[in-house]
Amino acid sequence: MVAYPRPVSRLIDGLERLPGIGPKSAQRLALWLLREPKERVAGLAQALLDAVEQIKVCPVCGYFSEGEACVLCDDARRRDALLCVVADARDLLAIEATGRFDGRYHVLQGVLSPIDGIGPDDLTIAQLLKRVDDATIPVEETILALNPTPEGDTTANYLARLLKQRGVKVTRPALGLPVGGDLNYADRITIERAIEGRCEV
Amino acid sequence: MVAYPRPVSRLIDGLERLPGIGPKSAQRLALWLLREPKERVAGLAQALLDAVEQIKVCPVCGYFSEGEACVLCDDARRRDALLCVVADARDLLAIEATGRFDGRYHVLQGVLSPIDGIGPDDLTIAQLLKRVDDATIPVEETILALNPTPEGDTTANYLARLLKQRGVKVTRPALGLPVGGDLNYADRITIERAIEGRCEV
Repeated sequence: MVAYPRPVSRLIDGLERLPGIGPKSAQRLALWLLREPKERVAGLAQALLDAVEQIKVCPVCGYFSEGEACVLCDDARRRDALLCVVADARDLLAIEATGRFDGRYHVLQGVLSPIDGIGPDDLTIAQLLKRVDDATIPVEETILALNPTPEGDTTANYLARLLKQRGVKVTRPALGLPVGGDLNYADRITIERAIEGRCEV
Repeated sequence: MVAYPRPVSRLIDGLERLPGIGPKSAQRLALWLLREPKERVAGLAQALLDAVEQIKVCPVCGYFSEGEACVLCDDARRRDALLCVVADARDLLAIEATGRFDGRYHVLQGVLSPIDGIGPDDLTIAQLLKRVDDATIPVEETILALNPTPEGDTTANYLARLLKQRGVKVTRPALGLPVGGDLNYADRITIERAIEGRCEV
């Protein structure tokens, strides 16, 4: 019985460690890569190396930076009194894409999840509180922009208590129907929240 | 509005080119990789480079080789008179995993698919025919182990004609119920083929 040559099986093993990639997908990806032009694959390898070499995490907000402070913390036009707490960089960029938020961010690097063994010390909660405590311009409001999931809700409740103790106003994004959505296809809880949070027109 | 730093977006672009990886998955993978220990990511980059540098395609059968001929073509215990044609290396290894096939292989590197612009010249069909024509020990039977899909069937029919012209017996793996399967959940055509191909017990 024959197996893949060692360099192929090592590549499959490496790909299989990626999240969401199972053994079959890893094989498919490896075989696809082996048919690609060499310079393309070398380009991907270089992109991996560059990213881990050149990208740092901003010590203030937790977003990516290439030097010391990140572009967001460096931007003097942003309001220091308004702080938006997000789980990761993707959520930050999703909010940035609206072009309507001009406050600062704080990236938690995840949410509390006892099942996955993620507790407060695994997130940047201590840094967040220190940031609020040490702020020269006081933080007036924190928007807890965490997903409306059990883990996101738990994390938001945990943070809300700590932030309110510090006299900071705590808000969360509204829950309701997505724009372009359909009442007929929305789940019961979403409709309930949309009715609860109804606004006068 | 802020975007990912260049090294991050280059990594996302590279990952997005992989088959079956969309923009959202590429972002998720990139962020996951940036949280991994540096040596792990460097290991994956090295595995990519090693694979494309060290792995060649066997000029005889089309399977992977590290040197000149592959382990399968080099194996003197295999029967030359029996040739199994497969679409790719994964299918070859799936057959090898049974441990019951002792003939030679020929890897087509795909199947005919006019929709994807894959014609006979994109596959190793010419090499297959040359191999049959030039064989010192004549090929008596070719098993066309291609998937029972429209593309696999088309490719098998195309090859069958060319191989029969050369006086080679052409077979395909049996169609029927998978072992451990359930008649109740099998599709109509599979049941039809299973009944057609029934065997005496």
